[in-house]
Amino acid sequence: MINMAWILKHRPQGDDWRSAIAYEEFPVSALQDGDVLLRTLYISLDPANRLWMREEASYILPLPLGQPLWGSVLAEVVESRSDALQVGDIVMAQASWAQYSVVQASAAYKVAAIPGLPLSALVSVLGLVGWTAYFGIVEVGAAKPGDVLVVSGAAGAVGSLVGQIGKNLGLHVIGIAGNDEKCRWLTQDLGFDAAINYRTENIAERLAVLAPAKSDLGGGVDLYFENVGGAVGNAVYSQLAHHARVVLCGLISQYNSDFKGDGADLSHILMRSATIKAFIVSDYASRIPEAVQALVEWILAGKLKYELDIIDGLDGLADGFARLFEAGGGHKGKLLVRLDATCA
Amino acid sequence: MINMAWILKHRPQGDDWRSAIAYEEFPVSALQDGDVLLRTLYISLDPANRLWMREEASYILPLPLGQPLWGSVLAEVVESRSDALQVGDIVMAQASWAQYSVVQASAAYKVAAIPGLPLSALVSVLGLVGWTAYFGIVEVGAAKPGDVLVVSGAAGAVGSLVGQIGKNLGLHVIGIAGNDEKCRWLTQDLGFDAAINYRTENIAERLAVLAPAKSDLGGGVDLYFENVGGAVGNAVYSQLAHHARVVLCGLISQYNSDFKGDGADLSHILMRSATIKAFIVSDYASRIPEAVQALVEWILAGKLKYELDIIDGLDGLADGFARLFEAGGGHKGKLLVRLDATCA
Repeated sequence: MINMAWILKHRPQGDDWRSAIAYEEFPVSALQDGDVLLRTLYISLDPANRLWMREEASYILPLPLGQPLWGSVLAEVVESRSDALQVGDIVMAQASWAQYSVVQASAAYKVAAIPGLPLSALVSVLGLVGWTAYFGIVEVGAAKPGDVLVVSGAAGAVGSLVGQIGKNLGLHVIGIAGNDEKCRWLTQDLGFDAAINYRTENIAERLAVLAPAKSDLGGGVDLYFENVGGAVGNAVYSQLAHHARVVLCGLISQYNSDFKGDGADLSHILMRSATIKAFIVSDYASRIPEAVQALVEWILAGKLKYELDIIDGLDGLADGFARLFEAGGGHKGKLLVRLDATCA
Repeated sequence: MINMAWILKHRPQGDDWRSAIAYEEFPVSALQDGDVLLRTLYISLDPANRLWMREEASYILPLPLGQPLWGSVLAEVVESRSDALQVGDIVMAQASWAQYSVVQASAAYKVAAIPGLPLSALVSVLGLVGWTAYFGIVEVGAAKPGDVLVVSGAAGAVGSLVGQIGKNLGLHVIGIAGNDEKCRWLTQDLGFDAAINYRTENIAERLAVLAPAKSDLGGGVDLYFENVGGAVGNAVYSQLAHHARVVLCGLISQYNSDFKGDGADLSHILMRSATIKAFIVSDYASRIPEAVQALVEWILAGKLKYELDIIDGLDGLADGFARLFEAGGGHKGKLLVRLDATCA
């Protein structure tokens, strides 16, 4: 069986990842006992996918060359050699950027449509990015009512949820994004208290006004949810309050430069007795139902909005993926590739 | 009353701090109710003193210009307008780099000589550096038997204690220092398992051998006690294990460059779901007796050695202070200025 797939041809250098991947026919492997054949419905495009193309191991081993890239997908089981999953089941899985994938049933996570929500919610707000936002702010960040929260990449899939969850938990929320339209969206549609355009405004100066210092020593930011890194991160660090916490979720500004850009200025971390805590959502795998329940309740109560940016057709994947890395670019919320146009 | 003091004349730029301080006569202020007059016995020279000369606030406000610099001292009360302290008491205090200081009695910490130990122990291993090492590794680092601990600035006052405490707690300890003689001292005299000369060896490559990777993802370092920062820190970061902890105690490599040097590469922190936690020992002020008791027991049992590097005479302070910042320089352990040559 042959299908179309995005293949990793060589290791990308800098921002040339596009020349490193190609849309080609690729054979689907035969099913072994315990496997299922998945028909891909949606592919989630995430910054971490770029890290997996590198030679160096990230939090997973590098993707092999000459094989389909992979990532988080929503798929339908179309053949099963496992008692755990039946044909017709809908699952979340780490699977190929392809029309079809073979995965072990034990590595797929069966999901059920939520009444009142489209299927796409399962691969966005109720999928990895939702879990990441929820556990990142609730557990890793130990958010407390009254905390001043700053989130970078605030118009992105994770950041836009983090800020809204922060508001739902009683925090004062300031977002950092790359253009004025995104900033308006954050404050007017999503309920952020304020937003800073990092391309036209001085982040440190704006934060000094928006999050006034709590003492003569340091600034007024209690909690920083970091998706971006580099100069943006350093500007926020300069405004941290004593004992501030930084949740390190991503460093997207450096994914295309192999982390050769501005390093982090730890002087403010040192002076403020602050903490930087990185995490991976799989640490919380056993608690996913708790996150989903909270997220669904907020959505149905109108207290959590999620924006989808959907690319139709697998062949458009690379164009969509490029938009993740456009500083100040136009995409908001979750980038998805939809393979089956009949899916909601 | 006039005495000799080191005065902060202007804000130092880069490594020119020496031209920014001067040894001059300076009047001793009159005592108010609640004050004591201290005769300085020992001055502790610490990297943080350099930070306090800057225009920018550190974890304390910048030292005022035209006034004596100050730091941690051991002193004798020679006049008291407080019921809390009597003439003849020995105290630890934050006081002037001068022969005499006036401080509030409530800000001085009365100490008693420990039988079998010289007075200088109180201002070194049983003073700020000892408390810092103890709480840094026990509480902030949450050291566990079997952890692989790396400590930079390992031949310094804090680092040399951290490594030995690590050994006493059952950790595998690797030190990083600036010359071969220091490395020999760490392994042969202080019981470190291994030492790396950062000026002649490749830290990351050596760690890959000394602290083998625990999995295909990441290295073998569970706990990193950071005193140095810059390239040294980044090399250690590249060898962190999953869920590693970094105790951020100091960044001495950057104190003379206003933190303009290499920033921290957080990619390894992100990939390893690691944590960087900075601290200040005053957070643990209420628990100092616990640290002192543990430290004294280890010293008297021969399980904790401390090296003193004593400069005699207040006029030699600047020469001594310069040695803190000499990469690969000759000093080991705690730098002290002794003002009273009769003191043990």
